[in-house]
Amino acid sequence: MPVATDRTRRPFAMDDAVAILERTPAALDALLRGLPDGWIAAHEGGDTWRPFDIVGHLIHGERTDWVPRARIILEHGEARAFDTFDRLAQFVESEKRTLASLLNEFAATRRESLRALEALRLTGAELDRRGQHPELGIVTLRQLLATWVAHDLDHLAQVARVLARQYSDEVGPWRAYLRIISGRQG
Amino acid sequence: MPVATDRTRRPFAMDDAVAILERTPAALDALLRGLPDGWIAAHEGGDTWRPFDIVGHLIHGERTDWVPRARIILEHGEARAFDTFDRLAQFVESEKRTLASLLNEFAATRRESLRALEALRLTGAELDRRGQHPELGIVTLRQLLATWVAHDLDHLAQVARVLARQYSDEVGPWRAYLRIISGRQG
Repeated sequence: MPVATDRTRRPFAMDDAVAILERTPAALDALLRGLPDGWIAAHEGGDTWRPFDIVGHLIHGERTDWVPRARIILEHGEARAFDTFDRLAQFVESEKRTLASLLNEFAATRRESLRALEALRLTGAELDRRGQHPELGIVTLRQLLATWVAHDLDHLAQVARVLARQYSDEVGPWRAYLRIISGRQG
Repeated sequence: MPVATDRTRRPFAMDDAVAILERTPAALDALLRGLPDGWIAAHEGGDTWRPFDIVGHLIHGERTDWVPRARIILEHGEARAFDTFDRLAQFVESEKRTLASLLNEFAATRRESLRALEALRLTGAELDRRGQHPELGIVTLRQLLATWVAHDLDHLAQVARVLARQYSDEVGPWRAYLRIISGRQG
């Protein structure tokens, strides 16, 4: 391995971003497919999400968020705000689905998204194009694509956290060492 | 899916625990194998760990922590404290290794650990057996095994966080929505 130097920030690069985006469905699949239902239905209380819901949310993002918003930026720039993203769509769309079928669909829709992204053959100048987020205001296409990557990883971490916290009591004194349970920041 | 009821805690059950433990190596493999080196060498500043280091740490745990400590509890109970776990061992052991070889080794050592665990055919009474942690004091075998599961998930979330935070600046205004970057608790 190369010696770690200043590795705390990474400028956006399309190949790097795609390398993560193309791996997320397989990582979630490896973690979740075939797990006992109790894990899949686990949540953190209140209206927090189950791993089942999170996969549905990721599918909805492929269909309505990332590539569609990239197209809005390219076609309309700041003149047309993005459609609002429905953070709760999966509670209707995933009803009566199995986790296995959702994982299959996430993998398929992600492949389609990455084919569409590649077909756009975005230039540096296009990555600088600006769009209008309905709440956040001006954003760039580069920021949208970087967010796609971070959003995947955010939800992968969320799945891990939801599962781990099921054992908040069972770990006993080790709770103090487990940042994912204690919530300690680092 | 079953309707979510009280799904915020889950009592330890061996089959549930093994279901997670046997999936972690494949999940990390799917996420990390073949990623550009810059992602593998990413960290969060100071002496925080790279994904590369985290895989090494998990291997070290298979060799010296989980099953070895289970055996100490079964053989010695509270009479013999666990050996202290070396949280930095991977910085020596992983030197000059490739990520691919570490991922292979983690998968192989985990399979060995799970075979050894199964061979113990632990009873409920044995899961209640108590041991002596050098810092935390009295712990049970059940707590040790629950911690093994949560520890896997903690480091999977850590890998996702280390990667996501590389784009802390690149996501621009979306930073406010990305809990993995903002550090916001929920």
